[in-house]
Amino acid sequence: MVASEFVSELRQRYGIEFKDLSLLDEAFTHSSYVNEHKELGLKDNERLEFLGDAVLELTVSDYLYRKFPDRPEGDLTRMRSAAVRTRAFSGFSKEAHFDRYIKLGKGEERAGARTRLTLLEDLFEAFNGALYLDQGREANIKFAKQIIFPKIDAGEFSADMDHKTALQEYVQQDGEVDIEYHLLAETGPAHARQFQVDVAVDGTVLGSGIGKNKKAAEQAAADDALTKLRAK
Amino acid sequence: MVASEFVSELRQRYGIEFKDLSLLDEAFTHSSYVNEHKELGLKDNERLEFLGDAVLELTVSDYLYRKFPDRPEGDLTRMRSAAVRTRAFSGFSKEAHFDRYIKLGKGEERAGARTRLTLLEDLFEAFNGALYLDQGREANIKFAKQIIFPKIDAGEFSADMDHKTALQEYVQQDGEVDIEYHLLAETGPAHARQFQVDVAVDGTVLGSGIGKNKKAAEQAAADDALTKLRAK
Repeated sequence: MVASEFVSELRQRYGIEFKDLSLLDEAFTHSSYVNEHKELGLKDNERLEFLGDAVLELTVSDYLYRKFPDRPEGDLTRMRSAAVRTRAFSGFSKEAHFDRYIKLGKGEERAGARTRLTLLEDLFEAFNGALYLDQGREANIKFAKQIIFPKIDAGEFSADMDHKTALQEYVQQDGEVDIEYHLLAETGPAHARQFQVDVAVDGTVLGSGIGKNKKAAEQAAADDALTKLRAK
Repeated sequence: MVASEFVSELRQRYGIEFKDLSLLDEAFTHSSYVNEHKELGLKDNERLEFLGDAVLELTVSDYLYRKFPDRPEGDLTRMRSAAVRTRAFSGFSKEAHFDRYIKLGKGEERAGARTRLTLLEDLFEAFNGALYLDQGREANIKFAKQIIFPKIDAGEFSADMDHKTALQEYVQQDGEVDIEYHLLAETGPAHARQFQVDVAVDGTVLGSGIGKNKKAAEQAAADDALTKLRAK
């Protein structure tokens, strides 16, 4: 079962007490641990992650919708993407000390899975899935008020709102430049169309991106270019 | 305002009565209508679509999670994708006669937007966003019980569960064949990695796909190949 100091910590820091501790336990059981202890017949946290992903998506969407009554849909979508992406969710997991309590298989532990961002993201989702099943969506909103909404209020995800604008600001620091986006390919069946775009600054291709429409692919390309420019 | 026969139809067919009819009105106002009637200062349905998208994602996820207690996360994710995709949502919109009542600009009307699947998908999402704001999530669940869950129960989305298996069954009708998936490219920044894969049957490339991991890209490639094979 999940460590008793974690149960105490959840209560003290977040006021969360699980009625059904087996749900909390399931959320903190990685598939690698299940595989190494087949004889125990444990459940891993992947189904809870599936559910928690959707719970968090609505929690964040509802908050953004009400907080920014005058922002167009595109801005809300970009902020939501930034708030629910791996970097954000893995950060929340660490802030809540979830990384200390996930049960891993020995191989994954040695491979450094405990600090892997996607694992921490999945864990944050699984915890929220368990919380939703145990206490209903109000409990997720209460938890988000403590751990997600303050970052939205602080504008932490607004910088990610529009990568094209951010790229423009970055490359034009030293004067006017010419930024062009080119559509390279359209692939996939009609119901799951994919667009591939690259972005060139003064004729040099700096990044590429894929998206379900041209606009999304351009945003991804701008984000890619910015990431590479900032890493220089 | 939205047509009174539609208000009656919603009440009679689905037992839905909006407290705030302006929300229903907003859900049925396309941006092209707003642009053609700037003097009216209307709101289009895009913000409601943003919200409704997340409401529907949770509604479907919750239902699948509870209905299939023994299915692994991968199966749930594929069924969810099938149930919330354009083809599904646009079908629900038509079934509920939403296509009759959307307010369009004249240009879009002439261009055939009223039957465009993505418009009908957005409309279904916007309606659910409006319903959620007006009456809370229980109303969305009640509506889903009438229009979405019966299709899940009938297995309508299970066929889409696993494209790789479906492709295998399709091409092996006339005997054993060799199916291979090849990773073509990995692109994008670490937090938004994209994988591109193609699928070859007996050495002939039949489809390609993109996904956020190799498994998803392979599923997309299999789906692409199947679509092309079935169109032959």
